[in-house]
Amino acid sequence: MTATGATRQTLRIAMNGVTGRMGHHQHLVRSVLALREEGGIDLGDGTVLWPEPVLVGRDARRLAALAGRYGIEEWTDDLGAALGDPTVDVYFDAQTTSARETALRRAIAAGKHVYCEKPTAPDIGGAMDLHRRAEEAGVKHGVVQDKLFLPGIRKLKRLLDGGFFGRVLSVRGEFGYWVFEGDWQSAQRPSWNYRSEDEGITTDMFPHWEYVLRELFGPIASVQAHLATHIPRRWDERGRPYEVKADDAVYATLELESGAVVQLNSSWAVRVHRDELLEFQVDGTEGSAVAGLRHCRVQHRSVTPRPVWNPDTAAGADFRSQWQDVPDNEEFTHAFKAQWELFLRHVARDEPWRFGLDAGARGVHLALLARTSAREGRRMPLRVTPP
Amino acid sequence: MTATGATRQTLRIAMNGVTGRMGHHQHLVRSVLALREEGGIDLGDGTVLWPEPVLVGRDARRLAALAGRYGIEEWTDDLGAALGDPTVDVYFDAQTTSARETALRRAIAAGKHVYCEKPTAPDIGGAMDLHRRAEEAGVKHGVVQDKLFLPGIRKLKRLLDGGFFGRVLSVRGEFGYWVFEGDWQSAQRPSWNYRSEDEGITTDMFPHWEYVLRELFGPIASVQAHLATHIPRRWDERGRPYEVKADDAVYATLELESGAVVQLNSSWAVRVHRDELLEFQVDGTEGSAVAGLRHCRVQHRSVTPRPVWNPDTAAGADFRSQWQDVPDNEEFTHAFKAQWELFLRHVARDEPWRFGLDAGARGVHLALLARTSAREGRRMPLRVTPP
Amino acid sequence: MTATGATRQTLRIAMNGVTGRMGHHQHLVRSVLALREEGGIDLGDGTVLWPEPVLVGRDARRLAALAGRYGIEEWTDDLGAALGDPTVDVYFDAQTTSARETALRRAIAAGKHVYCEKPTAPDIGGAMDLHRRAEEAGVKHGVVQDKLFLPGIRKLKRLLDGGFFGRVLSVRGEFGYWVFEGDWQSAQRPSWNYRSEDEGITTDMFPHWEYVLRELFGPIASVQAHLATHIPRRWDERGRPYEVKADDAVYATLELESGAVVQLNSSWAVRVHRDELLEFQVDGTEGSAVAGLRHCRVQHRSVTPRPVWNPDTAAGADFRSQWQDVPDNEEFTHAFKAQWELFLRHVARDEPWRFGLDAGARGVHLALLARTSAREGRRMPLRVTPP
Amino acid sequence: MTATGATRQTLRIAMNGVTGRMGHHQHLVRSVLALREEGGIDLGDGTVLWPEPVLVGRDARRLAALAGRYGIEEWTDDLGAALGDPTVDVYFDAQTTSARETALRRAIAAGKHVYCEKPTAPDIGGAMDLHRRAEEAGVKHGVVQDKLFLPGIRKLKRLLDGGFFGRVLSVRGEFGYWVFEGDWQSAQRPSWNYRSEDEGITTDMFPHWEYVLRELFGPIASVQAHLATHIPRRWDERGRPYEVKADDAVYATLELESGAVVQLNSSWAVRVHRDELLEFQVDGTEGSAVAGLRHCRVQHRSVTPRPVWNPDTAAGADFRSQWQDVPDNEEFTHAFKAQWELFLRHVARDEPWRFGLDAGARGVHLALLARTSAREGRRMPLRVTPP
Repeated sequence: MTATGATRQTLRIAMNGVTGRMGHHQHLVRSVLALREEGGIDLGDGTVLWPEPVLVGRDARRLAALAGRYGIEEWTDDLGAALGDPTVDVYFDAQTTSARETALRRAIAAGKHVYCEKPTAPDIGGAMDLHRRAEEAGVKHGVVQDKLFLPGIRKLKRLLDGGFFGRVLSVRGEFGYWVFEGDWQSAQRPSWNYRSEDEGITTDMFPHWEYVLRELFGPIASVQAHLATHIPRRWDERGRPYEVKADDAVYATLELESGAVVQLNSSWAVRVHRDELLEFQVDGTEGSAVAGLRHCRVQHRSVTPRPVWNPDTAAGADFRSQWQDVPDNEEFTHAFKAQWELFLRHVARDEPWRFGLDAGARGVHLALLARTSAREGRRMPLRVTPP
Repeated sequence: MTATGATRQTLRIAMNGVTGRMGHHQHLVRSVLALREEGGIDLGDGTVLWPEPVLVGRDARRLAALAGRYGIEEWTDDLGAALGDPTVDVYFDAQTTSARETALRRAIAAGKHVYCEKPTAPDIGGAMDLHRRAEEAGVKHGVVQDKLFLPGIRKLKRLLDGGFFGRVLSVRGEFGYWVFEGDWQSAQRPSWNYRSEDEGITTDMFPHWEYVLRELFGPIASVQAHLATHIPRRWDERGRPYEVKADDAVYATLELESGAVVQLNSSWAVRVHRDELLEFQVDGTEGSAVAGLRHCRVQHRSVTPRPVWNPDTAAGADFRSQWQDVPDNEEFTHAFKAQWELFLRHVARDEPWRFGLDAGARGVHLALLARTSAREGRRMPLRVTPP
Repeated sequence: MTATGATRQTLRIAMNGVTGRMGHHQHLVRSVLALREEGGIDLGDGTVLWPEPVLVGRDARRLAALAGRYGIEEWTDDLGAALGDPTVDVYFDAQTTSARETALRRAIAAGKHVYCEKPTAPDIGGAMDLHRRAEEAGVKHGVVQDKLFLPGIRKLKRLLDGGFFGRVLSVRGEFGYWVFEGDWQSAQRPSWNYRSEDEGITTDMFPHWEYVLRELFGPIASVQAHLATHIPRRWDERGRPYEVKADDAVYATLELESGAVVQLNSSWAVRVHRDELLEFQVDGTEGSAVAGLRHCRVQHRSVTPRPVWNPDTAAGADFRSQWQDVPDNEEFTHAFKAQWELFLRHVARDEPWRFGLDAGARGVHLALLARTSAREGRRMPLRVTPP
Repeated sequence: MTATGATRQTLRIAMNGVTGRMGHHQHLVRSVLALREEGGIDLGDGTVLWPEPVLVGRDARRLAALAGRYGIEEWTDDLGAALGDPTVDVYFDAQTTSARETALRRAIAAGKHVYCEKPTAPDIGGAMDLHRRAEEAGVKHGVVQDKLFLPGIRKLKRLLDGGFFGRVLSVRGEFGYWVFEGDWQSAQRPSWNYRSEDEGITTDMFPHWEYVLRELFGPIASVQAHLATHIPRRWDERGRPYEVKADDAVYATLELESGAVVQLNSSWAVRVHRDELLEFQVDGTEGSAVAGLRHCRVQHRSVTPRPVWNPDTAAGADFRSQWQDVPDNEEFTHAFKAQWELFLRHVARDEPWRFGLDAGARGVHLALLARTSAREGRRMPLRVTPP
């Protein structure tokens, strides 16, 4: 509910790539349009920020349909025109990775603030160059780091802020589920994710792991990874078999600068025997937690049981029941929307912001080091600032 | 229950190290004495094998007490005398690792069949040498591999034998629990496990993982490990603080010759958010299983769900309920006793046996390679036959 | 199980007042006789302490019956004779309060070590005098403080030792239950507890609260109390009505030197709407606990909910389910026996001991100050050392 | 539902302070607007009372927004204008305490009936003066005493009226929950509650306890209190730390004129191990009850168990299950609305009314005496009529 008589400040956002699943659902509908339904962002000083999307893409017919569906007035299949429009303030990019770098470069050159999906570029040179250009152009820049805004991860952050763990010893991460091969049941993910060795799960997920680990536990010191292509043959959207070139699983061990160890499995070839699709178990001297997308359970040192190894009897204790749910204690907003709001405030009022193109470059860097580590069979150190 | 009128064949076993916890409970009481209570081992040919323990150790008072408690007639604190006794058939060793190698060498030299705990020796040279000497001496030899006989692992083996998994893609192993530091609550494990860098969890557990992986999934091709000492200061049995020198956690990724990937965490600094203290999740093209000490659950390809990543709603599905318990379908005997029975049959009738000192050497080898890998930060290949 | 060949050191204990309920059950049967059944106390140096009771009392027939029932060889109704027997090492007293002081004084004069129930004397002068005499005589002395050895309180101590609470803010204590009036149902407590104003619940329980609070949370700084005689007329063991002169409830607020506040209700006129007959709720900056005789539940700061005051809807949350049981993690021995063992070790080997007649005097002191506070309607400060 | 053809009598109510949480939700929406939604108050004589709110406050923008949201036609930021409007019948005040007294005095002077939140004034002189002026002016006056209308308290009153307890011996009250400090989780209560020593929990809650005790159990004879500031540092709405000057817990013992004892804890630094946020346990000769916001359980003398103190076994009895729920047997209306209805009937038809400004003054008086008692460390007697 915005106060009557508030001043409205409009921010026009060229949104490129919103015909894709992520762009459409998470960014357009659940973030930008949702912010409009709430009456805009109340800046608290009598001003309300009002985001105004301009749809950009390559397929005019799909753009027109999307605009019609949501009553959006402006769309164009001419990126140059959108960037040339002086009333556009922000360029947002959720295209496929290969197209992103060039588009971002053009937007920065056009003086637009930029916000985009990850990875920001296929290689570290390109990712760093984007950051440098944005800084030189003086535009504001941001990269999506939605996992940080998941309710389960927010509760985990709260535990860390409250000193729950004492010293963090280790983190175990499990991510993934079974992606069907495409023959007897259609695949849940598009086939282009599997056709190039540059589009594997490592490239896709390690940018996420980089910011999640850094923001929760501090910088990464080294990474050791093992990549696999467990399912070497899949069937595409039209039922035609194809050879999989991308990795579909990655098993990694990372060392943090704090000395904690992170063991992290990501896989499209695993059946889920967990409570949530993504789970982190954190063990510390004072307590442990298991956090997922929405939930977070803890076991404090004070209630840690003394298990007995006795294979002769059925497990006496129900170990899972010895953990306790962390209550919500607040209402969590949609993860993507939460970050959009922060970015738009950053653009409008220069409010603090931690997730720029430099953070995006760190994510690209970690993914590349993980792949190198796997290829060469050795542990790769991370310099604090990537090259 | 043995048939009336059966011939009794006595096997006299010098049992060294049974005043310790493992030797006492698992080997003496629940294996050798339990076999006697069952009336011996019926060989099926009218003969009953009758194991007769002769207790050996260094502390006469404790030996006398143990013998008295269980009505065992013979005990000695003179190992030489026991080995010199021509009526003794088998030498069993459950001493601490450092004392084992020498004692085994003496037993082999004395012409005794030998059976022992792992690791068989502190280094690979010694472990291989024991095997060579036993072979040259023509004595039978065996190493304890109890984990193979756990009900949960037996059911997993049954699934593998039945072709349940199709091609095995990956194995995730989790082992461990929280060992108290010893100050505000006493530790569950003796302090000598933590005082030397040669007594860590890697040295302790990798001999187990070697035979479990090999027997279930085939030989190991390479290992990559990260060792940690998460709790650097502990308190001993008398409440005095000491510096921990041994690793208390090891995070490893192994490649099998089959191409499957094994990701394996072992830790004394983890709080248990699992159903059992040891769990393996196996994923294959046709189905997956999670096996523990006693239980085993499966999810076949035919019932694999299609999870949806939706952080906005509480996890729609209860993923764990989508797995199904594998029924026992047989009565499982005590794991240690099961292997004792196989070994005694092997001694008495030359029945097939897979768990000799060569297998013991493989276990020592894997533990050493894991430690080297951690130290040097690189993936270590395994030759099929260790040096 | 004591080691074969251990030396036995006998301690002869004159036990006075063991025909009463407490003396009989808790001290004789469950402590001294139980220690004998376990084979004595193993001092760990090859010596076993062997307690030998000599029953003392006034009623020869009851003593003879008791001795017969438990196969105890010696008993006497002549206290002087028992104290004059040079082979008696320890004098134990569980008589009624009024008889205790004189008997203890005689025992100390006879050079016996003394151990006794509380209160040690009816007034603080007598209690202090007992301590001074014991010190001057060089005998060892102890006062029963059984509540400290209750499993629930032991777990609470463990939490405190582990730093669970952060800074302790407050303690709420609830003790008591409904003691029937004696007319329509017989009373559970003897009528002499109610006939004199010197035998009320304050005199009975405040010696307990003194050591419990001191040992768990540190010294008491001040006390404020309100005494009540809620049931002014009761019926005695023979069904005859009598006027109650003693207080049957006391409501107190204490301040600790740490600044924490203790609110403490003790009553024989309360119906139990709790999990246990005695319960302490402890709230600290980092977490809270509710400890009783056997159980202890905690709520750590990390799982503290954000309750909403909404009288319009039925309580949304089940607050009790938001607490977690502290696991035993050890086997707790009988409370009285545990302290007996400590005292006998203190006598035999001068092992550390915190519960002497000075501690007994502190208990008497607190009870007296509470009564003064109630009478005068003011808060009474405690000097660290009572007069 | 009002009968067709009923006469409508409008009462115009100037509502001051309804932009605050309590005023907005409890008084405006759930009381006055709810009464309108029900069709007004049927006086039973063919007349329907129709309350008509006129919003009063200081922030025109917030008043306009509130009026707009609920379709209220009149609002003003000029209190003088509202009080000068001859069509306004009643003045209601839910402002902060410091502003209330003056506004009430102006309303009385303007000849309005007055109804208000508690405390009515910061000191007893002012509170008494308000009562005297209202009486002299001949206006009707009332003070909110919502706790009396809570379903659980209503059931407790029913038990008292039915003679359930016999003689009431004691009352134990527990109120409060954990208010977060504001650093790692935001606080549930506004920071102004903690910044002045005149705004503590004693000042806030003792006016409630006064009328609850008086209406249920009769007048209070004396009070003894201990105030604490358990959390001396909190973080405000903008995340800035501040020093807490107000008491956040008060531990009190009161004596009633009946001789019953009341022990009462109120705290913002306690974790809830109860069934409800507010609970009173009442023990009487004939039975006991535990009443909360909504529920009330009883244990009659006839079913009172005989508990056994036996620390050796796990608590034999589940004491809580030995209590029985008191059924609703009627539909309870919203507590605030129930009292509003009574007050408006009192205004319109001079129906009986017990909750005038004199009752308000008694509440202020008790709070002040409690604070004096704590400061001086002594029990404070209450004269039946405050000065």
